[in-house]
Amino acid sequence: MEKYRLTQTTFFNAVQDSIREVEKQMLAQADDYHPELHAALDLLLSSGGKRIRPALTLLTGRMLGADPDRAITLASAIELLHTATLVHDDLIDSSLLRRGNPTLNSRWSPGAVVLAGDFIFARAAKMAAATNSVAVMQLFSQTLTTIVNGEITQLFATHHPVTRESYYKRIYAKTASLFETSTQAAALISETGETERESMRRFGYEIGMGFQIIDDILDFTGEQMTVGKPVGSDLRQGIITLPTLYYIENHPDDQGVKSLLDPDCQDFDKTGVKLVESIRNSDSIQMAYHEADQFVHRGIQNLDDLPRNPEREYLRELALYIVERRR
Amino acid sequence: MEKYRLTQTTFFNAVQDSIREVEKQMLAQADDYHPELHAALDLLLSSGGKRIRPALTLLTGRMLGADPDRAITLASAIELLHTATLVHDDLIDSSLLRRGNPTLNSRWSPGAVVLAGDFIFARAAKMAAATNSVAVMQLFSQTLTTIVNGEITQLFATHHPVTRESYYKRIYAKTASLFETSTQAAALISETGETERESMRRFGYEIGMGFQIIDDILDFTGEQMTVGKPVGSDLRQGIITLPTLYYIENHPDDQGVKSLLDPDCQDFDKTGVKLVESIRNSDSIQMAYHEADQFVHRGIQNLDDLPRNPEREYLRELALYIVERRR
Repeated sequence: MEKYRLTQTTFFNAVQDSIREVEKQMLAQADDYHPELHAALDLLLSSGGKRIRPALTLLTGRMLGADPDRAITLASAIELLHTATLVHDDLIDSSLLRRGNPTLNSRWSPGAVVLAGDFIFARAAKMAAATNSVAVMQLFSQTLTTIVNGEITQLFATHHPVTRESYYKRIYAKTASLFETSTQAAALISETGETERESMRRFGYEIGMGFQIIDDILDFTGEQMTVGKPVGSDLRQGIITLPTLYYIENHPDDQGVKSLLDPDCQDFDKTGVKLVESIRNSDSIQMAYHEADQFVHRGIQNLDDLPRNPEREYLRELALYIVERRR
Repeated sequence: MEKYRLTQTTFFNAVQDSIREVEKQMLAQADDYHPELHAALDLLLSSGGKRIRPALTLLTGRMLGADPDRAITLASAIELLHTATLVHDDLIDSSLLRRGNPTLNSRWSPGAVVLAGDFIFARAAKMAAATNSVAVMQLFSQTLTTIVNGEITQLFATHHPVTRESYYKRIYAKTASLFETSTQAAALISETGETERESMRRFGYEIGMGFQIIDDILDFTGEQMTVGKPVGSDLRQGIITLPTLYYIENHPDDQGVKSLLDPDCQDFDKTGVKLVESIRNSDSIQMAYHEADQFVHRGIQNLDDLPRNPEREYLRELALYIVERRR
């Protein structure tokens, strides 16, 4: 625990001031528009989040000598894009809470929430354009495409069994794509070579995959208070994640597994609660942790070729922090 | 009527092939993604629309010597942006028909429609980035901001009386901003000077304002079959447009006007139907036509400084076509 806290403090402290500036610039995006939009952004920003994507962009930019103001603009664009996707996600899932805070759709009509998300997309695009890089814009629009295509795929596929391959595709779309963009775009606005840019892209990709696997584990192991939703909520919604995939492979004869995979099963709710408990207490959790570790350590290896400066060490710490979120 | 048809034929014929290419490129934006997204884009494209924005971009680009492929990319980006906003609009208004064709939300769940709109926004941004112009990207994101802020403003203000000034602001956000971008962005990708660019921006702005005023008139005068929605549907929803504003000014003692402006009025539905009929038969319609004419002719004046070639004449015809839509 002590190590966890220390690690978090060190790399977050290094970018804390810049992250405050990112949050200021995000909020300022609503300054000249309808007051309700300002209130919405304020609500969204005050419900926090770890700002891990801006931290990635800021540290990568610093490590590679990017202009600090440009890096802050880019980090704001990325976090706004992330925020906009969450606004529409919460609407689609009818979620009333995120991280224990009220969502926008707990207060606004669905139509207003659609428009608030659209507004934040527009401002994200505006800030991405303000980096003055066509390459960043291309990456940005491609990442949004990937994220939304992943959500559409999930929406049309809920309650179907998944393979390991489709799970990786889904978590890439959901999380790793924007982590990848956070580091890759920071390299794009720096005076750096193709090799270093590719190393940073891979770093972002691998730790993004690790991050989402840990999130999927926490859905089983976390306390409701910490995670902000009921234990096993993914599985209860028919979403199969890595711990479940391992459990299916290792316990093909388990009654819960059979119900889960039976498309005609009518009473999954009852066996589902038991299945969540079985997975939670099985070695599938450790196997998933192991896999997240592997992703993160592959990510860290990519830092070897990069400038040996404090930021590189912070990025390594950030990567390790991801797999240490085991509470 | 004959003149109307001839005018439309001439300038549309000039860009018909390019518009087919625009539609092809728009549809191709879903090629590598979830099949349902392809089906959605196909449905949206097959329900037509006049493609007046792409025509504006293509003609302006040709007049100013822009690279033809780049102009097609830009025109596709603009029409995709327009399409995405319509998808979310129809969802918010729960519209089941647009131009007599089924909307996406008549077939899909609300969540899927939100995501389909987001996907089309992402692809619009991708095509805007493919024009390789940071200035185009900035204009694009600013225009989306303007459109969405206008919709939020309208959403939070329904049933409130409006002034002429707020009406102009609303139709700028709703329509003229994207017309302005269609011509201005085409000038930006051409090798042309600041003065010509500003003239084309003003041309787009003025005819866009005229276009929306005509649309607002057609809501009163059009046949349900042509307009695709009941006569006077704006007013029935509490949206006050130019014909109503003129009618209020000229008939302050009309019973329907009094009910409309009374925030406590409970039975506007009954007086509303009569008010629609009164406005439809009043000189407010002609006054609104006169105003649309003024906008369009101010727009046409801006063409004086531009290269004297066939495209300039087509743009003039396109502008006149806008005010001739009096059916």
